[in-house]
Amino acid sequence: MATLTQVEATNVTAPTQFIATGAERYAYRRIGRGSALPLLCLQHFTGTLDFWDPAVVDPLAQTRELILFENAGVGRSSGAVPDTMAGMAAHVLAFADALGLTQVDVLGFSLGGVLAQVIALERPSLVRKMLLVGTAPEGGEDIMHLEKPELKRILDDLQVQGLQRLVKLFFTPSEASQAAGRAYAQRLAARRQDREPVSGPKVAAAQLAAFRAWERGDGGERFGKLHRITQPCLVVNGVLDQMISVKNSYTLSEHLPNAMLITYPDAGHGSLFQYHESFVQQASLFLGETTR
Amino acid sequence: MATLTQVEATNVTAPTQFIATGAERYAYRRIGRGSALPLLCLQHFTGTLDFWDPAVVDPLAQTRELILFENAGVGRSSGAVPDTMAGMAAHVLAFADALGLTQVDVLGFSLGGVLAQVIALERPSLVRKMLLVGTAPEGGEDIMHLEKPELKRILDDLQVQGLQRLVKLFFTPSEASQAAGRAYAQRLAARRQDREPVSGPKVAAAQLAAFRAWERGDGGERFGKLHRITQPCLVVNGVLDQMISVKNSYTLSEHLPNAMLITYPDAGHGSLFQYHESFVQQASLFLGETTR
Repeated sequence: MATLTQVEATNVTAPTQFIATGAERYAYRRIGRGSALPLLCLQHFTGTLDFWDPAVVDPLAQTRELILFENAGVGRSSGAVPDTMAGMAAHVLAFADALGLTQVDVLGFSLGGVLAQVIALERPSLVRKMLLVGTAPEGGEDIMHLEKPELKRILDDLQVQGLQRLVKLFFTPSEASQAAGRAYAQRLAARRQDREPVSGPKVAAAQLAAFRAWERGDGGERFGKLHRITQPCLVVNGVLDQMISVKNSYTLSEHLPNAMLITYPDAGHGSLFQYHESFVQQASLFLGETTR
Repeated sequence: MATLTQVEATNVTAPTQFIATGAERYAYRRIGRGSALPLLCLQHFTGTLDFWDPAVVDPLAQTRELILFENAGVGRSSGAVPDTMAGMAAHVLAFADALGLTQVDVLGFSLGGVLAQVIALERPSLVRKMLLVGTAPEGGEDIMHLEKPELKRILDDLQVQGLQRLVKLFFTPSEASQAAGRAYAQRLAARRQDREPVSGPKVAAAQLAAFRAWERGDGGERFGKLHRITQPCLVVNGVLDQMISVKNSYTLSEHLPNAMLITYPDAGHGSLFQYHESFVQQASLFLGETTR
């Protein structure tokens, strides 16, 4: 196992590290290095550190440090999973403070993309640029309705478990997308040691409650807060995403003042994993630009 | 003036050339060269060859030949402007045949993007990849309604003429977008000689009639034909486009089987001119990819 002074270049072997605040002990990983700002990576619904695809994070780590964060109550992070987005975002900020991070770029995928928005509003100085992938604005629509027939069918199938289930959920039924999904699952399985415990129903229930409140909105002007997020954003979505509809990415790119949108064809929630080469290229271009 | 054997590298000075078929004499320009397939460029509503922004076409011409086409009845091309998209697409095909083109990539902007779709359906073998910018599917919505208050206000303003009018129509009211628009107008004005005559009301009327029929649709399954366009497509739109709503690009990318979508923030119909550096980079990536 690597010591903390070695630079790990891949999420297949990067050790899980821990940092304690007064309140919690957070699990995280650091991979890569470079002169660019660190990229703080915020994970999807029920996902642990083990669900960051090496095909996405490893190439990005060639030119920058990536910090993969495990929120409270997930994996080996202590504490209870908050049932609000604000609660989860507070843990991200506590973690960033504990690490002494003053400015980062953020890659927020799905649930992580929601937290990225909350953080950009709560502490704008922390965030330089944001990659918002497969995510939704507050007051959005068709967000994580696991009771939808398209999703329920997969979740009720007892023959489909673990990573196989994720392949069905994150990729489209097309042969090309399913093949990309199987390759993704193989990449995730390549990490053999020092794995995080898989999330159970309590994690899912709390995070889903947070999603429901996020979809309902705060009662204020719909999408009104987005205009205050002035950071350059790259919004990315699969055009056939069943978990968080692409409509939410349209809304984000229409209301965020400085957001470029990319959608991928024949792709679902896991578009960044399916099109990992293009995504890495686009993310590198976006993060590397000195001006917009 | 350059001879036809010289390679022109810029639309500021590339000579207008002519080719005769049995029926018509078409004006066109060729710029650049390279090992890549030629890129056939199809122009917007009332636009002539002079409206191809050097900041877009010149860099693309570094690695490929660009062929700028002037449809029948526009500029110095002979004939009447057809009042149907099929009629205009037939002229594109006649021109391609006259030049002996058997396969090309296509950059279709606005009206040109509609013709690109018609051509891909009519003669799929001719088209390898398509860039569809600020355009709409058959049966789309909010397509070229010049009577909309946002557009009518500009068109009725007698103080705003020529390129200034285009800056108002193609760019958003923000200072940044208007500044980009003024730079665009300066680039277009850099061509001093061998210019095309500006389009008059007859050109506009015929092209608008074609747009109205295109928006109505053909009475068949809405967007049903798009599934037959299997070429890789890059769909691009300004998120605040008042002339052809970004909703049309959402529809294109949702129904074309192999289309990536990019939208640009604080950009209108002329998003490719406003973000010319990014657009050229994205177009080069897309056209240069060997696989999708």
